[in-house]
Amino acid sequence: MTFQDRLKSVAAEVDATLETYFNAPAEPLEDAMRYAVMGGKKLRAFLVVESCALHGIKHQEALKAAAAIECIHAYSLVHDDLPSMDDDDLRRGKPTVHKAWDEATAVLAGDALQSLAFLILGTLDVPSDRIVQAVIGLATDAGKDGMVLGQARDIAAESADAPLSLEAITALQAQKTGALIRWSATAGPTLAGDDVAPLAAYATALGLAFQIADDILDETGDEAKIGKRLHKDADAGKATFVSLLGIKGAQDMACALVAQANDALCIYDAQADGLRDAANFVISREH
Amino acid sequence: MTFQDRLKSVAAEVDATLETYFNAPAEPLEDAMRYAVMGGKKLRAFLVVESCALHGIKHQEALKAAAAIECIHAYSLVHDDLPSMDDDDLRRGKPTVHKAWDEATAVLAGDALQSLAFLILGTLDVPSDRIVQAVIGLATDAGKDGMVLGQARDIAAESADAPLSLEAITALQAQKTGALIRWSATAGPTLAGDDVAPLAAYATALGLAFQIADDILDETGDEAKIGKRLHKDADAGKATFVSLLGIKGAQDMACALVAQANDALCIYDAQADGLRDAANFVISREH
Repeated sequence: MTFQDRLKSVAAEVDATLETYFNAPAEPLEDAMRYAVMGGKKLRAFLVVESCALHGIKHQEALKAAAAIECIHAYSLVHDDLPSMDDDDLRRGKPTVHKAWDEATAVLAGDALQSLAFLILGTLDVPSDRIVQAVIGLATDAGKDGMVLGQARDIAAESADAPLSLEAITALQAQKTGALIRWSATAGPTLAGDDVAPLAAYATALGLAFQIADDILDETGDEAKIGKRLHKDADAGKATFVSLLGIKGAQDMACALVAQANDALCIYDAQADGLRDAANFVISREH
Repeated sequence: MTFQDRLKSVAAEVDATLETYFNAPAEPLEDAMRYAVMGGKKLRAFLVVESCALHGIKHQEALKAAAAIECIHAYSLVHDDLPSMDDDDLRRGKPTVHKAWDEATAVLAGDALQSLAFLILGTLDVPSDRIVQAVIGLATDAGKDGMVLGQARDIAAESADAPLSLEAITALQAQKTGALIRWSATAGPTLAGDDVAPLAAYATALGLAFQIADDILDETGDEAKIGKRLHKDADAGKATFVSLLGIKGAQDMACALVAQANDALCIYDAQADGLRDAANFVISREH
């Protein structure tokens, strides 16, 4: 199976897992939540599943942890797209939740997706102390010292007097997108009570490579393929890895980071090839 | 000590507990979070503390559980006040978060308060399986089958063709405000692994009495004392307990519910007097 096929296969399994947490018939609130969380590449879910396989977590429990992180990721997109935030009408080629429903529903669907993430984590069939570690980690990585802080700093950067430096952008992105990628890639050792250091190192490099690739796509990508509005940061005069390093410099940095991510996997054998493929995918993807 | 003094004392202790989870110096995001969660009556926190004392949970751990539920309550108020939701400028006599900062900060501060609630729960020094039960309970009561569902249904009721029936309002309020009150009042037995039934019965009656009292205050209260805009539901033509039962009928129902709440406490001795006082307070308060 190619990497793309395995990614799709995990995405389908995670969507099926998510489905079990929704009621039928659904309230409009739940329809909006499902709309937001179903579909998409589900790269974070893939990282969770591969990380769990490396550390002996049962596949079914890995899928639940994967479903949890995708709920957090989906909620962050729904809220980021709001008019008072990034004001986006399109996401994954479809109208954003506040366009398909309304702003109140988007706020509430995002809120309930965050709750659902912690509910799903709570239902994992692993020792309770491992669940607690995973909850603490997710609450930290998603919250005021992780993803939300990165988002708040990103918004503040829009009205700052000067564009951010390379160092400041790197720190900001480590929070905004890096924190959830780190949680995902370290889910296996966290839930198994093993050492998270190698996968944390992998994730730190991968997260940054991912964001640099995003900035490159924002500059060179095809809006129709990507399914969202592009060139927004550049139009807003915000610093990006491309504006600071140029396309070539950004590509070189992303490649170096992917090599670094793969180096961090050296203690794992061929079982970690899924994570190696994911790292290579991150800088070669077209959407 | 009078009930009011004990309520104030718990509120101060919970604020001090919350303070330990914030960084100094704080980001603007954290300033907004602190602004939203500090102060207020902290009735839910009081219920947690009393419930925990009845079931032998250490006071310091009870304060953490109380801090967690107040983070959820505060986040729900910040998001409910947004222009796309209830559009309120005033809360507890102060500008709402989106007025004091901006809408994006209000969305993000609410999001991060929800994460913080689960982080704080994760740090409780009780057996891990009890923490997991508390996490599952909070994620359920706060999410798409609890508080957020109630809020979504409340908003939908505004544009419905006909006002809600007494039965429908009772069900809606059991979710919107009842779910968090139930979690609070049952926190002690949940964290101790004891039977939650008596306190759940207490909380169900109390939660409804609380909402009826709120509707009465909305009709008869003093805007300056309460610190928020009143008569909104009536002005919007929405059904309330007062519009359905009249002031006298609503008062009678609230009194009967408080008696019912106190009956549910019959298995507890004088140690439960704090919860009895809380029930009486709920229908006698002026704000």
